[in-house]
Amino acid sequence: MGAGPSDPALVPVIRSWAGCHSTGEDQQTVENHTIAVVGGTGPQGKGLALRFARAGHRVVVGSRSAGRAEDAAALIRARAGTTVDVRGLDNRTAVAAADIVLLAVPWDGHGELVTDLAPDLDGKLVISCVNPLGFDRRGPYGLAVEEGSAAEQAQRLVPDAVVVGAFHHLSAVALWEEDGLLDHEDVLVCGDERAAKDRVADLAATVTGRPGIDAGALRNARQLEPLTAVLIGINRHYKTRSGVAISGIPA
Amino acid sequence: MGAGPSDPALVPVIRSWAGCHSTGEDQQTVENHTIAVVGGTGPQGKGLALRFARAGHRVVVGSRSAGRAEDAAALIRARAGTTVDVRGLDNRTAVAAADIVLLAVPWDGHGELVTDLAPDLDGKLVISCVNPLGFDRRGPYGLAVEEGSAAEQAQRLVPDAVVVGAFHHLSAVALWEEDGLLDHEDVLVCGDERAAKDRVADLAATVTGRPGIDAGALRNARQLEPLTAVLIGINRHYKTRSGVAISGIPA
Repeated sequence: MGAGPSDPALVPVIRSWAGCHSTGEDQQTVENHTIAVVGGTGPQGKGLALRFARAGHRVVVGSRSAGRAEDAAALIRARAGTTVDVRGLDNRTAVAAADIVLLAVPWDGHGELVTDLAPDLDGKLVISCVNPLGFDRRGPYGLAVEEGSAAEQAQRLVPDAVVVGAFHHLSAVALWEEDGLLDHEDVLVCGDERAAKDRVADLAATVTGRPGIDAGALRNARQLEPLTAVLIGINRHYKTRSGVAISGIPA
Repeated sequence: MGAGPSDPALVPVIRSWAGCHSTGEDQQTVENHTIAVVGGTGPQGKGLALRFARAGHRVVVGSRSAGRAEDAAALIRARAGTTVDVRGLDNRTAVAAADIVLLAVPWDGHGELVTDLAPDLDGKLVISCVNPLGFDRRGPYGLAVEEGSAAEQAQRLVPDAVVVGAFHHLSAVALWEEDGLLDHEDVLVCGDERAAKDRVADLAATVTGRPGIDAGALRNARQLEPLTAVLIGINRHYKTRSGVAISGIPA
């Protein structure tokens, strides 16, 4: 609690790290981020927090309750099987401590939450993996969103953040339970600023072993978010954990 | 010209054919279809017509002009490199001759075309691979469609047809130029009738070497159609021919 950007333990550092594939070099120097996972007590957030922490990033799990956030952080530390830097804080403090914020919250209440956090999200790289989905007797489906997508809603509510959509399609179960890279899947990354997309593409490599794929402008979140409904339907039909891979991308 | 369902040369027959993977048997008896490809002079339609013909189906290329349809059919026969049953007819006659109709037309004019053909589409299996896309300075994007998707529009206009959405994402260039199966890609199949989806999934196996994937209800065409915009953007960005594969599907 009370940790902020001035906390030296939370300031991002530059170090040599060999887990990033963006230029094809064997060893690269990339930023080691402090990543706040808002909604980090949910399955998708917890799974991604685990992966980011294992890759050497500092992770701050955020929740409405600092206590539940710290409980999730403890689970992640226990699951990681190695020393990782994961702590739990209330959402606002978590966001303030981070240079990258992952929004991994339910669609229900998304607008209010982002509005509440807006002052702290300002100026930051915000990654949205939020999926506005409904479920009825015919299965899961994409909900109509006034702004087009959850990512675009976040961008509208925090115009001075840089919002990128990514990590919508990875299975929470696979993120948490599998030990290896999810190298049979791709992370599709959409956004309107190249540098931000490149950072997120590099971050995706910590999960899949290859950079995330540039999936165009932020408005393409209108396609990426509800595609999750199709995958959930496929999971139910085939009793599997499906994922998306894009063929034809040069290595 | 004038060929109709009563033309014995166009009546579908049952024969043994080993190109279908739906039950895992080595040899299966599947229907050999007569498939009309409306818009068969365009790149996607021509490519799929070639693949269906190579797999032993009778193919009727449809176009507004019977002459252009026959020109395309001649190109397909020449490209096939083997004896195939492909002819070209005006759209209405092509549809009347077929038990399966593939709509491979541009979105512009789709409603009028389907309305014109409705009497002949009645009662048939209609596959839509139509992508309602727009293009602006930020790239390709999915257009808003009153019915939700082109496939749903076709279903509304021809309520007594069974409309299935499929084949949206295959590269027209790969369909035409590559000789082998597109086995690095999946065909996602959406529809509201299981038997129809199964037939289309089998048909997809003639293109990719494995059955198409059940992607849920017809309304999921709202996701499949504009996903093509994302793939076109990826093609431009990476200078490639991208495709979609779904990981985690049991063989």
